[in-house]
Amino acid sequence: MKLMTEKGSSRNIKLLIAYDGTDFSGWQTQNTWKTQNAREAPRRTVQGCIEEALQKLHKHPVSLAGSGRTDAGVHAAGQVANFYTDIQSIAPDRFTPALNSLLPRDVRVLAAEETHSGFHARFDAKARTYRYHIIAGRHAFPHELRYALQLWNCPSVERLNSYARLLRGEMDCSAFATPKDPRESRFRYIFNACFFVQGDALVFEITANAFLWKMVRSITGTLLSCEEKGVSVSEFQSLVGGKDRSKAGPTAPPQGLFLWNIAYGGAYRSP
Amino acid sequence: MKLMTEKGSSRNIKLLIAYDGTDFSGWQTQNTWKTQNAREAPRRTVQGCIEEALQKLHKHPVSLAGSGRTDAGVHAAGQVANFYTDIQSIAPDRFTPALNSLLPRDVRVLAAEETHSGFHARFDAKARTYRYHIIAGRHAFPHELRYALQLWNCPSVERLNSYARLLRGEMDCSAFATPKDPRESRFRYIFNACFFVQGDALVFEITANAFLWKMVRSITGTLLSCEEKGVSVSEFQSLVGGKDRSKAGPTAPPQGLFLWNIAYGGAYRSP
Repeated sequence: MKLMTEKGSSRNIKLLIAYDGTDFSGWQTQNTWKTQNAREAPRRTVQGCIEEALQKLHKHPVSLAGSGRTDAGVHAAGQVANFYTDIQSIAPDRFTPALNSLLPRDVRVLAAEETHSGFHARFDAKARTYRYHIIAGRHAFPHELRYALQLWNCPSVERLNSYARLLRGEMDCSAFATPKDPRESRFRYIFNACFFVQGDALVFEITANAFLWKMVRSITGTLLSCEEKGVSVSEFQSLVGGKDRSKAGPTAPPQGLFLWNIAYGGAYRSP
Repeated sequence: MKLMTEKGSSRNIKLLIAYDGTDFSGWQTQNTWKTQNAREAPRRTVQGCIEEALQKLHKHPVSLAGSGRTDAGVHAAGQVANFYTDIQSIAPDRFTPALNSLLPRDVRVLAAEETHSGFHARFDAKARTYRYHIIAGRHAFPHELRYALQLWNCPSVERLNSYARLLRGEMDCSAFATPKDPRESRFRYIFNACFFVQGDALVFEITANAFLWKMVRSITGTLLSCEEKGVSVSEFQSLVGGKDRSKAGPTAPPQGLFLWNIAYGGAYRSP
């Protein structure tokens, strides 16, 4: 694959992307954490779909750098990615309709702009925000079930937030880590974590400098499970401090999760 | 198929049903308006899915009467249907979890109750309400695109409502009829028709005693097209009075449309 760099006359284009993750095996084209069976059909990925559209526009392969991967079934309302282009005839904002006309309906480019040549969607991201949607205490409509977790009980938002408040700041996130995650440091800086009610749904929003693999879904599942069991705030504190994933709760299913926003500005400073 | 009637010890169960119409060829199992090609694979219908679940519960075929058909790709948040059951061991409200455990995720029973033996979901319905969802003037997210029409312009809600107001009352709806519709009378009583903004979406809601085939989508497409062309209110009045479908606007696509509510009470009286 021909990776365009900032050299020469190429322009660096930043995309804002949304997708319905239901029918995707996640964001990333190659799953480097698993040995891919050569006989398996290639998996449908968001990155793969957009790179295919970019290749059609450019007549040669173009690689796309995302702010981070999302798992199979996880949606995005504000994924960010960038690519270098040698096409001079398309104004930056015209990449939006050009790409959308080549993309399937479950991926949409929301905006495109030219950015400075050194910008990298992943390395420059200062904060990532995820939202997890929950329909509690009533039957979810099928058009909600695709994008939310169905809970039959009605959890106390106050109690959920009494746990969530303890998650702020720099912390060792081992209690919410996946054993297979190869990254060395389990420390992450959580800027904010809170539950709120929006319309008919309960929403958990969490912002951090970065997340471990499946960390948001582990946190969501643990918070809901602790609330249901009536775990005290100090017991929850011990659970987090114990750094033992097996003591935490289940991993919430992917369909409720949205990658909501990637922040590149100076508002977020992690130490 | 064994159609249970009110005779004997059978109970009449009324269901409130929601579905994501995307992957269905509509509500009705057999399309009596077209000659079905015998070699075609049977189409996936909502009625068919629920009747299959009922058959699993009953160990014999059970027929389900819906309040009316919805077209391929049209969704429902409040479809109503009824069936007769000879099962005495299930309390009426327990049909909800029993059926949901047998149904695919894109159909959900929201409620079940026993009703009087003569109740018929179609013949007893006094009013049907549909809602059409539109995302206007911005990029729709993929999770909205599945359930809404994407409009690039921002129509005037005031102007749309100046047309919609003319649709109230008893009227000959030939201007919005499909030539293939075999029903003799084109007169329908429209209780209400209006546009409103809900969250990020523009919504058209219409309630009538009954609708002709594709009538809601014809009306929606015509109203949006008239607004875009700047048609005057009196021109719109003439268009409706002219009873000529070819003079009206396009049929709006199915994905924005939801069967929203079926009313059986006495609040709606058509002459």
